[in-house]
Amino acid sequence: MPAKMTTSGLQEQLMALNKIGIALSREQDLNQLLTLILTESRQFTNAEAGSLYVREGEQLRFSVTQNQVLEARKRAELKAQKKPLEVAPSTFTGFYVSLDKSSLAGYVGVTAKVLNIPDAYKIPPGREYKFNRSFDEKNNYRTKSMLIVPMKDASGNVVGVLQLINAHKGKSIVPFDKHFENLVLSLASQAAIAIKNTMLTQELKEAYLDTIFRLSVAAEYKDDDTAVHIHRMSRYSAILAEGLGLSAAEVESIRYASPMHDIGKLGVPDSILMKPGKLTPAEFKEMQNHTLFGAKILENAKAELLKVSEQIALTHHEKWDGSGYPRGLRGEGIPLSGRIVALADVFDALTTKRCYKPAFSLEESMKIIKEGTGRHFDPKVIAAFNNNLEKILAVKAQFSN
Amino acid sequence: MPAKMTTSGLQEQLMALNKIGIALSREQDLNQLLTLILTESRQFTNAEAGSLYVREGEQLRFSVTQNQVLEARKRAELKAQKKPLEVAPSTFTGFYVSLDKSSLAGYVGVTAKVLNIPDAYKIPPGREYKFNRSFDEKNNYRTKSMLIVPMKDASGNVVGVLQLINAHKGKSIVPFDKHFENLVLSLASQAAIAIKNTMLTQELKEAYLDTIFRLSVAAEYKDDDTAVHIHRMSRYSAILAEGLGLSAAEVESIRYASPMHDIGKLGVPDSILMKPGKLTPAEFKEMQNHTLFGAKILENAKAELLKVSEQIALTHHEKWDGSGYPRGLRGEGIPLSGRIVALADVFDALTTKRCYKPAFSLEESMKIIKEGTGRHFDPKVIAAFNNNLEKILAVKAQFSN
Repeated sequence: MPAKMTTSGLQEQLMALNKIGIALSREQDLNQLLTLILTESRQFTNAEAGSLYVREGEQLRFSVTQNQVLEARKRAELKAQKKPLEVAPSTFTGFYVSLDKSSLAGYVGVTAKVLNIPDAYKIPPGREYKFNRSFDEKNNYRTKSMLIVPMKDASGNVVGVLQLINAHKGKSIVPFDKHFENLVLSLASQAAIAIKNTMLTQELKEAYLDTIFRLSVAAEYKDDDTAVHIHRMSRYSAILAEGLGLSAAEVESIRYASPMHDIGKLGVPDSILMKPGKLTPAEFKEMQNHTLFGAKILENAKAELLKVSEQIALTHHEKWDGSGYPRGLRGEGIPLSGRIVALADVFDALTTKRCYKPAFSLEESMKIIKEGTGRHFDPKVIAAFNNNLEKILAVKAQFSN
Repeated sequence: MPAKMTTSGLQEQLMALNKIGIALSREQDLNQLLTLILTESRQFTNAEAGSLYVREGEQLRFSVTQNQVLEARKRAELKAQKKPLEVAPSTFTGFYVSLDKSSLAGYVGVTAKVLNIPDAYKIPPGREYKFNRSFDEKNNYRTKSMLIVPMKDASGNVVGVLQLINAHKGKSIVPFDKHFENLVLSLASQAAIAIKNTMLTQELKEAYLDTIFRLSVAAEYKDDDTAVHIHRMSRYSAILAEGLGLSAAEVESIRYASPMHDIGKLGVPDSILMKPGKLTPAEFKEMQNHTLFGAKILENAKAELLKVSEQIALTHHEKWDGSGYPRGLRGEGIPLSGRIVALADVFDALTTKRCYKPAFSLEESMKIIKEGTGRHFDPKVIAAFNNNLEKILAVKAQFSN
């Protein structure tokens, strides 16, 4: 057994644990979060390998795995074969373990007990749990000491299992110090709650986005019954925003806000919206008012996303040379979000069939857009479009009518 | 100075800190979170009082304060005066401190330094910071030892200041042990991040709700231009849900979902929606289809909220006796959410002026609703309505046309 921990060792742990806590609270991306938890837990306990399972119904999903021995071996093999030294993948998903006593992780998942096993090959007979050697045999690996703890959320529900393998003391593999048990358990619980919070935030964002899409699609129902138009528009706009170097938060705002660009059409009478022939000048004027009505629906909002959507609703028919509507703004006087959506909207209208026109070919559409550069469209947005044409065409192919 | 901490003392702290970390990650309500942070920090350091300031622009808002000496004195006074022993308020808001060196909290907020002061009345001359005695003088209190730490988020920005006052060792007031500085600092940072996360989640929820309201109001624009109808409906529905004993999460779902109950009217032609006279049977049939169209807009969603809104859109015109539409469901065959919104919708229609009718008085409206009990309305929902009439009338008054 390792020596009893000293006061200064404990203080170091205390600070390390706090740093982990802070890192956990900060991390928004679930996969990065899980990887971080595992990495930090291994460093904490000096473990050469580990896995993290997340509960999904009656199964545990093998979410992250790390094994510095196998990773080093892989790198050595690649070097010997003079192959490029890819980074050995440390994350893979999709492998499941049943939530029952047929595996050590499953046992911990079911019972919520901690297992601290000095040697996985010498588990005394008569225990309720047993070690499955298949991974070791397949990979020519030797699992020895193991520390397996449940990840419990605030209500005490097991949401996952954290498994650490082969604690080191210098070059030798030693059992996991009993003092680590509570520490790793606390860390795992904190992680469990962070995971749950992250999931809740992700669910909330997805629900929000889904709602925006559904209501935006419904609002355009009478004008254009192709729901995919809204989805394409949103994605085109996000690609352009990204291509223009906007921040991740700004790109997300544009992604969420752009579906609402035509929400003001709710204020346009059916007789104009659904008129088969050409609109009279008076009718066209009324149709143009959808920009003003859209901005009115979205005005005075606190949320950044809705501010951006108001901007887009108001300005997505302005043109770079000042010949657009409703205000005749020109150049950089038009908000960038409006300039982005203007191009996304026109590109989508050109390349798809509408009740008043057939779909133009990509060549024709690109020609029309090129002609509009500096007249209808911001040359910088056009550049972002050309630089990201591959991504845009992938979206077009994915969301075809 | 207190004795150096022992190993077992440190281990206890380690566990306590973890418990706090877990509690922090769990807490969703910001005020409860701030109170918890302060309470736990005080217990940790054995401090008799403390305050927590949250940064708002160039000011610090005095968000939570606790003082067990003043609270005990207040209770003793009330007892002596034979007045009811109210719980002394431990939370008050609205008092601001400038974010500059004119106060100790402001100094820490500006410099992000830790101040550990043995006696606030004996700060050596020439220091950049000084103690303001006005609180002590006003309350006949003696501040002695103080530990004031910045609350820094993950990017190192100061989002608040945590101030602890008068550490105890038995009955005597002692300086704060230096070992506590880093601990309290870590805890404050973790709290800062939790606060930021909570704020982000709250902002996201508010943005979501705001978006639902705006788009729902816009969708009903042609049929009913009173945006307040949607707001009243949502609140009436939430009051009824709460009165029926549903969980906080279910109440919130109904609050968010009910504004979308008539979203299917987007699929009804203007000529029917805006017809001044009585609808023909064929037109009425088409109008009724707004329930089916609404459910179609919202179908197959992953989010619980949208599932509830689909249910509501589909069933809010069903009647308890089976005479409603579109399915003629009866009794508990109608989802509870639909039964709730049915009453909220009718009550609002009765008590407000519509293009086709004047507003009925409360008496008339209540009479009509009573007559509908067991025929149009679920008797249990009617009971919840009657039991919560005061709240309902408060909403009616707050959101009048």
